[in-house]
Amino acid sequence: MRGLYYDGKEAVYRENLPMPVRDKDRSLIRILLSAVCSTDKEVRKGYRPDFRGIMGHEFVGVVEESNDESLIGKRVVGEINEVCHECLYCKTGRSHHCMRRTTPGLSKDGCFAEYMILKTENLHVIPDSLPTEVAVFTEPLAAAFEILEQVDVKKGMPVGVLGDGRLALCIANVMHLAGAEVTVIGKHEDKLKLFEMIAKTTTNPEAESFEILVEATGSPLGISQAISLVRKMGTIVLKSTYADNASINLSMIPVNEITIVGSRCGPFEPALKALSEGTISLPAIEKYDIKDWEMAFASPAFKAGFEFK
Amino acid sequence: MRGLYYDGKEAVYRENLPMPVRDKDRSLIRILLSAVCSTDKEVRKGYRPDFRGIMGHEFVGVVEESNDESLIGKRVVGEINEVCHECLYCKTGRSHHCMRRTTPGLSKDGCFAEYMILKTENLHVIPDSLPTEVAVFTEPLAAAFEILEQVDVKKGMPVGVLGDGRLALCIANVMHLAGAEVTVIGKHEDKLKLFEMIAKTTTNPEAESFEILVEATGSPLGISQAISLVRKMGTIVLKSTYADNASINLSMIPVNEITIVGSRCGPFEPALKALSEGTISLPAIEKYDIKDWEMAFASPAFKAGFEFK
Repeated sequence: MRGLYYDGKEAVYRENLPMPVRDKDRSLIRILLSAVCSTDKEVRKGYRPDFRGIMGHEFVGVVEESNDESLIGKRVVGEINEVCHECLYCKTGRSHHCMRRTTPGLSKDGCFAEYMILKTENLHVIPDSLPTEVAVFTEPLAAAFEILEQVDVKKGMPVGVLGDGRLALCIANVMHLAGAEVTVIGKHEDKLKLFEMIAKTTTNPEAESFEILVEATGSPLGISQAISLVRKMGTIVLKSTYADNASINLSMIPVNEITIVGSRCGPFEPALKALSEGTISLPAIEKYDIKDWEMAFASPAFKAGFEFK
Repeated sequence: MRGLYYDGKEAVYRENLPMPVRDKDRSLIRILLSAVCSTDKEVRKGYRPDFRGIMGHEFVGVVEESNDESLIGKRVVGEINEVCHECLYCKTGRSHHCMRRTTPGLSKDGCFAEYMILKTENLHVIPDSLPTEVAVFTEPLAAAFEILEQVDVKKGMPVGVLGDGRLALCIANVMHLAGAEVTVIGKHEDKLKLFEMIAKTTTNPEAESFEILVEATGSPLGISQAISLVRKMGTIVLKSTYADNASINLSMIPVNEITIVGSRCGPFEPALKALSEGTISLPAIEKYDIKDWEMAFASPAFKAGFEFK
């Protein structure tokens, strides 16, 4: 089959990849559409030096083989952490931090190919009314919904979103949906235009303006600005991950009794619901053939992806 | 009167300080015993360059003048933040972060003198049975009790305390009293001996061992070790403040969904109760005359203080 493979040094388009073979706990999925995430770009640059395999973890596909016959022929999206159900974290309600977890495109074969296999328990059937092109946003939008699982966003509460990229747009939408009074703090006037329907925007925010400040800059220096923007006893939600250290001073965290909540993957159900009901809509995905993966990786579109026909 | 004054450059012992003059909201307190805290040492080194005044904020005294006559002649301790009751923080239950707060020894005259004045509402009468030499630990112990206001410490929960200094000893005592299974992680075998009645001690801890990890090293690098010691989705309580930046990487906070809670001053009631009932006992205070303040500041004792007779 055709797909994009990371060989330990670089990403390589291949036409002769072997078909994956499933066991009883897993389903075989024919990929309809998969999407490029910044993590995939990091993998290409060597973020996971030990990984060898098919890249990608955001997808919509059709179940072709499964021990759960009710799924056969259904369109699905899939949660990305395959977990053991036996370790300390699985047994204490933290299975997405499973000590033995594997993740498509990061530690096992992913979805930038015609077929993939994934644990059947990870699959969510999507409604017939939800276009594949919209459902593919489920995973990144779920990461924004994770914030509502972690902090108490109240109606009318002043919430800041620091960053004007893709993740920031998902987050600002979720905060708006939760009833917060959202302000997006960015650097690019043109990018901030995308936010104007749901939030105030600024490039020059006032200090101590927000009860909750979501840091989604992708930069190691985002935390320092976040500390200055959040109110005393307020909460910073930290989304950015990066490779480099930064020189920072955390003293204001105890002095102002700030709480910082690290936030990663999230729940699929509310994301699927918001996309199905149209309460959150995101810019259209730009589609490429997988052999043109370099163009997709370089695209400035909100989201680029691979269509398999 | 006699006292220790910070003149903007250095600490100076003076014998001719004017008696403080109270207004109707404040009481005049004759100091019996005041204690040196690491913050006082930082003030001496220039931590508050704009401050001019009598140093010190931990004390036990006797009320000599007050509009609340029931207080006259009583021994008291005092909360350190004088607040306005009108700003955003005062009106939303965060008055110890009052935007107009003043603090003895940091932004107004403090307690390293024969007399001080403090808002009457800040005073707590101490029981007759509680010795002055023990009551003087109320303020630093309250900072440790603040943690119980902020995080849910459960019985039998594995809690780590990072640091083997004075604050760490207060914190380890409070965590032990709350029923946690406490491990103290330090660098000095001799200092760790002080903890052995209430906690396991180690210089070589295992990674991801603790649901809650209290960082009380006083070093900007403490946070990096704390991140490695706390479990995924666990909580770090951050107590350390310091002047210098440090080169750190916070990516594991989102990846492991760690929560960081900044923690500062705390409630006096539970601290007074624990000292009164003897459920927490701390090493004895070492007493000096205020003219020998340099010896007190240099003392390696658990706590050094000034007795006024």
